[in-house]
Amino acid sequence: MNAPHVGTHLVPEFHPRAMPIALLEALKTRFGTQLSTAQVIREQHGRDESAFTVPPPDAVVFAENTQDVVDVVKLAAQYKVPVIPFGVGSSLEGHLLAVQGGISIDVGRMNQVLAINAEDLTVTVQPGVTRKQLNDAVKSTGLFFPIDPGADASIGGMAATRASGTNAVRYGTMRENVLALEVVTASGEVIRTGTRAKKSSAGYDLTRLMVGSEGTLGLMTEITVKLYPLPEAVMAAIVSFDTLADAVNTTIQIIQMGLPIARCELLDATTVRIVNQYAKLDLREGAMLLMEFHGSPAGVQEQVEVAQAIADEHHGHAFEWAKTPEERTRLWTARHNAYFAGVQSVPGCKAITTDACVPISRLSDALLDSVTEAQQSGIPYFMVGHVGDGNFHMGYLIDPNKPEERELAEQLNHRLVTRALALGGTCTGEHGVGLHKMGFLVDETGAGAVAMMRAIKQALDPDNIMNPGKIF
Amino acid sequence: MNAPHVGTHLVPEFHPRAMPIALLEALKTRFGTQLSTAQVIREQHGRDESAFTVPPPDAVVFAENTQDVVDVVKLAAQYKVPVIPFGVGSSLEGHLLAVQGGISIDVGRMNQVLAINAEDLTVTVQPGVTRKQLNDAVKSTGLFFPIDPGADASIGGMAATRASGTNAVRYGTMRENVLALEVVTASGEVIRTGTRAKKSSAGYDLTRLMVGSEGTLGLMTEITVKLYPLPEAVMAAIVSFDTLADAVNTTIQIIQMGLPIARCELLDATTVRIVNQYAKLDLREGAMLLMEFHGSPAGVQEQVEVAQAIADEHHGHAFEWAKTPEERTRLWTARHNAYFAGVQSVPGCKAITTDACVPISRLSDALLDSVTEAQQSGIPYFMVGHVGDGNFHMGYLIDPNKPEERELAEQLNHRLVTRALALGGTCTGEHGVGLHKMGFLVDETGAGAVAMMRAIKQALDPDNIMNPGKIF
Repeated sequence: MNAPHVGTHLVPEFHPRAMPIALLEALKTRFGTQLSTAQVIREQHGRDESAFTVPPPDAVVFAENTQDVVDVVKLAAQYKVPVIPFGVGSSLEGHLLAVQGGISIDVGRMNQVLAINAEDLTVTVQPGVTRKQLNDAVKSTGLFFPIDPGADASIGGMAATRASGTNAVRYGTMRENVLALEVVTASGEVIRTGTRAKKSSAGYDLTRLMVGSEGTLGLMTEITVKLYPLPEAVMAAIVSFDTLADAVNTTIQIIQMGLPIARCELLDATTVRIVNQYAKLDLREGAMLLMEFHGSPAGVQEQVEVAQAIADEHHGHAFEWAKTPEERTRLWTARHNAYFAGVQSVPGCKAITTDACVPISRLSDALLDSVTEAQQSGIPYFMVGHVGDGNFHMGYLIDPNKPEERELAEQLNHRLVTRALALGGTCTGEHGVGLHKMGFLVDETGAGAVAMMRAIKQALDPDNIMNPGKIF
Repeated sequence: MNAPHVGTHLVPEFHPRAMPIALLEALKTRFGTQLSTAQVIREQHGRDESAFTVPPPDAVVFAENTQDVVDVVKLAAQYKVPVIPFGVGSSLEGHLLAVQGGISIDVGRMNQVLAINAEDLTVTVQPGVTRKQLNDAVKSTGLFFPIDPGADASIGGMAATRASGTNAVRYGTMRENVLALEVVTASGEVIRTGTRAKKSSAGYDLTRLMVGSEGTLGLMTEITVKLYPLPEAVMAAIVSFDTLADAVNTTIQIIQMGLPIARCELLDATTVRIVNQYAKLDLREGAMLLMEFHGSPAGVQEQVEVAQAIADEHHGHAFEWAKTPEERTRLWTARHNAYFAGVQSVPGCKAITTDACVPISRLSDALLDSVTEAQQSGIPYFMVGHVGDGNFHMGYLIDPNKPEERELAEQLNHRLVTRALALGGTCTGEHGVGLHKMGFLVDETGAGAVAMMRAIKQALDPDNIMNPGKIF
């Protein structure tokens, strides 16, 4: 029943199912040049940003519309062969890996913004639309889509992993921001969940069941999300602290006061040092808090004053405030560069990334010990946190060819997650379970809840063709 | 496949299952005086605020803890007899009615506030805690639970129906505010969904699957919800308009601007007249908008100015502003009395209540025609709306002994829902499906989505013992 913990199984198991020639022929007939079995294309669709490697999918179909998706799924269902949705490949937990072989359905060409309903603050898109493309498309309306996981991910991928990122502390995650879906089920039927109404009590919440299901229950072909008026005023700030504890405690107090902060991000001193080297910056090498405030001019001013007072109490240094977009971009450089600076600080490395999220009052307990453990182990790492949500990431930098480094990183991850769960938190705030956190899911929710998830999976996908081998 | 529309089936069908003597005996042995089969007790547990009547449940168990619930469910599962959770009986759509007989599990004695985690802005309660009790319990922390459906409903019932009410426009519904649950499944297992972390991507969103499932998938025995800091400043206002259109258009513009209004409620002129008679008030008998603003003193002042300017543009009259709790209570009297004033305006009547919710830009289209149709039909009615969410209720007042009045009310309801669905809305913004909206659910979501709901129900409750005969 219990999935093995990662750390004991460092390489995902590969159990390919037979890919019948007849299926490949049928796909070729139906899709022509939209189908590829070229090695290089398959390999592009068989990896994500995780540190796992398995053989690539057997074939890739470039879907151009819902009917294409329906037809791939119906053929796959007929032959009981897996289908795996692919957006831009920016997921972090092995979600896209073809651990049972099968067909990758690339939705990159399904990149139409279908309906901008500015007067209702909603937009409907195809799953291959990326978040930057979406924001470009709605720019002229004075509205924006706030969810920003860092990568220019596809909206389909973000919905499938229940993504969030830097703005979630104010605007919520994909859980709160997806209103309605068109979904192709495991039998190739097209269903609709939700409406454009802001709230509903109409039966089971299939929308939120699909959001975060990582392609295992159905394949999203249309996604309706909420938009927000661009704030009248925006103010950003960076503050440096002598200790990580001061930065974390500043965050905790800001959140507990109910300040409607729009972003609240943390880098530890090690990460600031890495970013300084990478981007040739001269930032003070202490723990750094990056904040952003949205609202009316007076509202933002009020928020800024409260935040500054709280940071002052915790010995904040070197405040810098920025009003204009250009100044803000400059201040946020450190945050935007952190992931790449981290990964590039050790040539040839891969990052093993953690994603714990805890109740805000437990953030110091969860975060400080995890950073100390990483430092004591001597492993190279970087650390960034959406700390306003109680969510933080350690990136342990390993040589993928050295099993002992991977083992050490997974041991640190294991200790970190165990601590977060003991503090009432979750093993994954925003990345999803994928392959990497299957064991932790059982620890977190218990066997009973996982059994319920399995029962739902079995009911909706009895032949287990929708992205099999993930989550549990 | 399609459930019959209400309006063609005015009285719910009653298909009782056998209640074996052996089960009654086993319940008596296990529960002693916690079990009742007295007619008056059973009748109290066999009705809600809907206009339906069916025979009462066969027995009532007053559960005092999770183990009691487990033991009832296990016995019921053994004999394949229905169990129906009962909070305070304030649901509106026949959710509690024992249409297949069985055991009502009254959770009213499970009314402990289990853990107030003020520093994390969360509280964990048993399902029988009411929203007023919850707010009393957390008062000293400076926090509050904003969801207010009018009735002093139980938190369990509110979660089961995905309730919302007057504050949802700012704070969201039970969908956004339930973080974690303890649930007794159909086989009598106890599972946990979610954690106290603010966000999570850990597998299927069982929490939100349970929220709004109306007792058909499991029985909630612990509920963790979000709390919010009491706003520093609160300002309330009433404004009167010559036309309903002006009031609705004021609302639409306020929402489209992104003003973070905390409550935005509408009464039409007919309803204001009814309230005046009921509470001996002297309110201007036009369409009335009731608003409330939460925030810092300066923030509230800004919001008030914007709202007033928008209302002025739409010819708002007789503004009254209130700062103190006492003044606010006075202003809100009209809204608080609307339901009871409505029902009592026609002696002996029952209200058939509608609950459509539409995208905000379509609110005039949905609401104005519905009010006109009611007026033209000559049926007595009242109308209240959580219009900031695009949600409004017509209460058609019928003599329950006159089938032709019920038929007329259901015809009006049918036209109203059909219109709301055509405008991209939902048949139920906050009441749930229960018995009353089963036909509309198919119209709204399509047969495919309902089939998916059925498949989930079948997987999690194969013997169909959890509140059977509801939703679909």
